Amino acid sequence: MNEKVKKQVYKPKAISGFPEWLPEFRSVEQRWMDHLRKVFESYGYCSIETPAVEELDVLTAKGEVDKEIYVLQRLHADPNDPNGSRGGDARLALHFDQTVPLARYVAQRFGDLAFPFKRYQMQKVWRGERPQLGRLREFYQCDIDVIGVDQLPLAFDAEMPAVMYEAMMGLNVGRVQIRISNRKILLGLVEALGIGDSVLVTRIVDKMEKIGRAAVADMLKNELKIATPAIDAILQLAGTKGDASALRNISSQNAQMQEGLEELTFVMNAVPQGSAIADLGIVRGLDYYTGTVYETALLDIPEFTGSVCSGGRYDDLAGNYINRHLPGVGISIGFTRLFDVLSHYGHIKPGPKTPTQVLVVLPSEERRTQAAQTASTLRKRGFNVELYHAPQNVKKQMEYANKKGIPFVWFPPFDDAGKHEIKNMTTGVQNAGDPATWTI
Amino acid sequence: MNEKVKKQVYKPKAISGFPEWLPEFRSVEQRWMDHLRKVFESYGYCSIETPAVEELDVLTAKGEVDKEIYVLQRLHADPNDPNGSRGGDARLALHFDQTVPLARYVAQRFGDLAFPFKRYQMQKVWRGERPQLGRLREFYQCDIDVIGVDQLPLAFDAEMPAVMYEAMMGLNVGRVQIRISNRKILLGLVEALGIGDSVLVTRIVDKMEKIGRAAVADMLKNELKIATPAIDAILQLAGTKGDASALRNISSQNAQMQEGLEELTFVMNAVPQGSAIADLGIVRGLDYYTGTVYETALLDIPEFTGSVCSGGRYDDLAGNYINRHLPGVGISIGFTRLFDVLSHYGHIKPGPKTPTQVLVVLPSEERRTQAAQTASTLRKRGFNVELYHAPQNVKKQMEYANKKGIPFVWFPPFDDAGKHEIKNMTTGVQNAGDPATWTI
Repeated sequence: MNEKVKKQVYKPKAISGFPEWLPEFRSVEQRWMDHLRKVFESYGYCSIETPAVEELDVLTAKGEVDKEIYVLQRLHADPNDPNGSRGGDARLALHFDQTVPLARYVAQRFGDLAFPFKRYQMQKVWRGERPQLGRLREFYQCDIDVIGVDQLPLAFDAEMPAVMYEAMMGLNVGRVQIRISNRKILLGLVEALGIGDSVLVTRIVDKMEKIGRAAVADMLKNELKIATPAIDAILQLAGTKGDASALRNISSQNAQMQEGLEELTFVMNAVPQGSAIADLGIVRGLDYYTGTVYETALLDIPEFTGSVCSGGRYDDLAGNYINRHLPGVGISIGFTRLFDVLSHYGHIKPGPKTPTQVLVVLPSEERRTQAAQTASTLRKRGFNVELYHAPQNVKKQMEYANKKGIPFVWFPPFDDAGKHEIKNMTTGVQNAGDPATWTI
Repeated sequence: MNEKVKKQVYKPKAISGFPEWLPEFRSVEQRWMDHLRKVFESYGYCSIETPAVEELDVLTAKGEVDKEIYVLQRLHADPNDPNGSRGGDARLALHFDQTVPLARYVAQRFGDLAFPFKRYQMQKVWRGERPQLGRLREFYQCDIDVIGVDQLPLAFDAEMPAVMYEAMMGLNVGRVQIRISNRKILLGLVEALGIGDSVLVTRIVDKMEKIGRAAVADMLKNELKIATPAIDAILQLAGTKGDASALRNISSQNAQMQEGLEELTFVMNAVPQGSAIADLGIVRGLDYYTGTVYETALLDIPEFTGSVCSGGRYDDLAGNYINRHLPGVGISIGFTRLFDVLSHYGHIKPGPKTPTQVLVVLPSEERRTQAAQTASTLRKRGFNVELYHAPQNVKKQMEYANKKGIPFVWFPPFDDAGKHEIKNMTTGVQNAGDPATWTI
């Protein structure tokens, strides 16, 4: 009866690129996510969540995707199920970002949403890339986007950095600098210079921080055959940094450049003081962006290279799925990447191992009901409370509180003449108290 | 420059079994999850999150899995990556529950955890099953479990229903009845009757609610060749329901049955009044459970058939991964299933479409700074606030508030002599107010 065959132990290996945390770090992750959510909601962004899974055809509707996509395949396919992903004929895949799912969601539910549609999304995404520190296969992204119909006011381009600055300032990551540009400025200049494909130019300029100014100049010269005066003009523009006043001295060469400068000036004047700088070297590699672009540096954490929070304005969110013109602007925190790198370098102080604030001691089996009542009273008053699970000696019960880092141990009456006492485990001080009125 | 090839629109289809919600239902889902988390933490359960992905060898270490597993395959495999899931040789898969990942987590991090380890986990799981109402391919489960080393006090078997009763009472699902039994009772009886494989008997008794008493009797007779007096004894036992006193009249036939009755009596005496009944018909099909077992019925929602919250005691959590004896007890809410069925039948009242509580009107471009200041002041005081995005006419701005269901519209001064006024969109009443002191 109920016979057990003793099985071989399979020792699980950590899977590279799929991080998970001990409870004391998970509690910090939760606190961070709660903070982000609170800030996003304080600006009126609503939450949506899409399935982890999309049709592969949806994910690739835009054309070739440069992210490695994970396709799903059922271990035991059911040949009678027309919806199943069968054999090699897989049709469902894990999303690799939250923008494609947002586009699909908005296209599919267009008639049910109120525009401008302001949403945040904090979900895991998956990319089958070769993992390394800061490059993961499963990670959270925290995105906010605003989608308009036919047009979307520039005010939202200024709201993105305002929200994200406030969001990041609550994460104990030191000084944060958001860098803003507008792609129309550089694209306009390149067009005015008459030196060919402006998208190729932006892709090279985008490498500035990685490879340096001289290397960028070389690439522009050797790969795109651009003449030195034009390269100088491009590099001078890309070197411009500062507040809105830094933009005043730039003479626009055509309407596009002018438009970009005006938009960026508007945005810089509207963002909160000290939260962001204009940096015309920011172009973002993605052709996807059509106006404002953002990147963010952590000034006090040199170990974190690259941008922790990026995004921009796009002309048309969901053109692959619906015949409506839906411009948008969005920005995204690479949440797990940030958390992973910071914890790797010891910048994240572990939080509590348990949410428990009070451990109620169980004096004896006979007094279980009374002790449980004490725990229940405290719980109803909003405290997180554990009743110790067995009437072991008090030293053992205190050890449990110590091991889990529970800050208060509550001694309910050990007999009918006894009183309630509470020990503060940090200070060691022990006082009398009443579960109906006690406060931390 | 930046040329766009006009692409064909790909109209996305809903993928059966992968639910998602409009913002007004997502906000309810969030409220539910917040409530569950709050209750779980109030009893000292810490959060953990494991990757969605496990090694396939980990998922199947126990032997054949009766759930349909989704295996991952990279769309473009990199033949140089030893970690990659290549070609048909996929090694990574999506978890189908949270118990196997918990076992793997505890085995792998055994030295870093404090025991008894109390954790909750609210994540999505995936099963490649044929979808239907209430049976989904991607869904949230909300689990609590306590894991001990070598032994685990019975007090935790009583805590499970206490926590879940409180958790479910906050979800507006009407009256909830948790049904508790102990597998040792029926297994003991079957052994005492000397009628063969007790596991096969429990599997048949488990069908009682679905197929009825007579059909169960037929199956016991025809399939297991059990004689009528033994069948009567089994069915009489399985028909026993009530509070702890209902157990007093059962005469135990052997030590196992006696132990089961004592354990169940302890649990029934310790659970909060009115939250649960003893029901010896509950056996749970899974051989996995070794003692206490739980199922939960929604008494006021007949459309929801089957158990909304189930679990039990298991002897050995992680024996497949570590050579330690780790008994545990756990219970799980089939969250998305519950939400899906209830919203399908109209039992879920949509929540707000937006978290915004106050829409601040933008009087004119000139007064943007002042209006933004008003929004910022209110936001700092804890309100969720949107500043309208463009200086359109007031009627248009109010329309936006109406469409999104924003409860208050704030009119900042339209000129230097003006005053702040706030309109309650529900009552239509408009009053003067100060952003530094106003309350809802």
